[in-house]
Amino acid sequence: MLLINSIYMMNIATMEAKNEGKSIGFVPTMGYLHKGHISLIEKARSENDLVVVSIFVNPTQFGPKEDYEQYPRNLNRDMGMAKSVGADIIFCPEVSDMYPQNFKTTIHIKGISEKLCGSSRPKHFDGVATVVNKFFNIVKPTRAYFGRKDAQQVAIIEQMVKDLHMDVDIIPCPIIRDEDGLALSSRNVLLNKDERIAALVLNRSLNHAKALMKEKEINIVKIKKEILEMIAQEPLAIVDYVEILDSKSLNEIKELRGSILIALAVKIGETRLIDNIVLEE
Amino acid sequence: MLLINSIYMMNIATMEAKNEGKSIGFVPTMGYLHKGHISLIEKARSENDLVVVSIFVNPTQFGPKEDYEQYPRNLNRDMGMAKSVGADIIFCPEVSDMYPQNFKTTIHIKGISEKLCGSSRPKHFDGVATVVNKFFNIVKPTRAYFGRKDAQQVAIIEQMVKDLHMDVDIIPCPIIRDEDGLALSSRNVLLNKDERIAALVLNRSLNHAKALMKEKEINIVKIKKEILEMIAQEPLAIVDYVEILDSKSLNEIKELRGSILIALAVKIGETRLIDNIVLEE
Repeated sequence: MLLINSIYMMNIATMEAKNEGKSIGFVPTMGYLHKGHISLIEKARSENDLVVVSIFVNPTQFGPKEDYEQYPRNLNRDMGMAKSVGADIIFCPEVSDMYPQNFKTTIHIKGISEKLCGSSRPKHFDGVATVVNKFFNIVKPTRAYFGRKDAQQVAIIEQMVKDLHMDVDIIPCPIIRDEDGLALSSRNVLLNKDERIAALVLNRSLNHAKALMKEKEINIVKIKKEILEMIAQEPLAIVDYVEILDSKSLNEIKELRGSILIALAVKIGETRLIDNIVLEE
Repeated sequence: MLLINSIYMMNIATMEAKNEGKSIGFVPTMGYLHKGHISLIEKARSENDLVVVSIFVNPTQFGPKEDYEQYPRNLNRDMGMAKSVGADIIFCPEVSDMYPQNFKTTIHIKGISEKLCGSSRPKHFDGVATVVNKFFNIVKPTRAYFGRKDAQQVAIIEQMVKDLHMDVDIIPCPIIRDEDGLALSSRNVLLNKDERIAALVLNRSLNHAKALMKEKEINIVKIKKEILEMIAQEPLAIVDYVEILDSKSLNEIKELRGSILIALAVKIGETRLIDNIVLEE
């Protein structure tokens, strides 16, 4: 496995692979890998000739009061994990190379970027779209793999790729959960023991919503209300949002029809967690 | 010469050329070609295996009160001209294919986009950057050719390509002028006879500035003042801006040092024209 930290060297590796007609599978991450990432790398490994995993805690997707500094980092650990499932290249560029002093470009996906996580994290998805665009141009992947835990991120990347005619297949992959149901996230390590237990309310409330969907007289208002009540019972939890949307467009819906996304963001102590479920009515 | 109006077919043509190891020269235009465009196509022809000229009057770079509807169009004439200098492909996509109903993506280059033409045309350069990004991803050019008449456009495209690691060489080319000195522009056909004569004040004032640079006690304030006075003497002309900037960064300068861009925009009747000159102190 190769460790590359220069954009220039990554370009050369990409060009070589392209010249040899190899397909490139790309897994962009912020590091501190968990089984969710590993499932993406495994899928990329099974479908491509070359597997590139980027590790880059992207400063432009963090707000000024967010946890950029606290975000967990451990390159050695990540390299071991990525290697064990067959990654060929770990690409971890420097912040100063990705964003030199006179960096000026921003990509904005209107509408989708402003709702859900976008309303409490105003510039977050501009940062995500821009850095992913940069990575796609550097790594030139055939396929890129994203976890569905960040459902809004997947929708935004898919929209950008379509609008800008980028030559890459976006492969959304299932949420991976711990045995107790907590969706895997690099931020889970920031939870203390009590918070870890409290955090289970995210998955519990989504499962409750799933059960509610089977009731006859169910509607959006009632589901939202019951989720909010369940989270309110958890003293360490503060709701950011609970939204029920069309799973494809992320548009608001008035009736429980078709493929429905229930997405939520909840602060557990200082740590903000997200989770979601897609249900077919 | 091939006429392509579908993005899908253009993708196929691009892929074929890439697979055959051909270099692609790209000249993006809004059509109604003139000798300025022709000089770009000729240069592309001399440096590449395949030459693609796009003709697309891009609605997103026009403001609501601007001349999108009036902008001159003549595809047959353009095809004849492009063919005569060796273009291989004319690519003229439909507006509805470039901007389907749920199009959501915008690229913004901060700082450079807001000054000069950006202040009187607020969303203009977002439209330019976004459409050029789309074209680069569709056509995948080795080299792309832009006239220096749109000096700000060149700076913005160069910044975007650098920031987003796009794999294309930007080749800025000299301004082409009519015998009387008027910089060639597709909008020149919108001028009536009197306006055509009045429009010469742009080039005349730039030449005057060039002469002034040789004076001992010359400074930025004096050059601006004399240009403004010269344009004020022309009854059909209304100044939009006269700016003296660093030619590379387009940053404001306080002293006449290094490579200097004098850029101006002037309305002649209903038609807004731009021109510029680069001077070495």
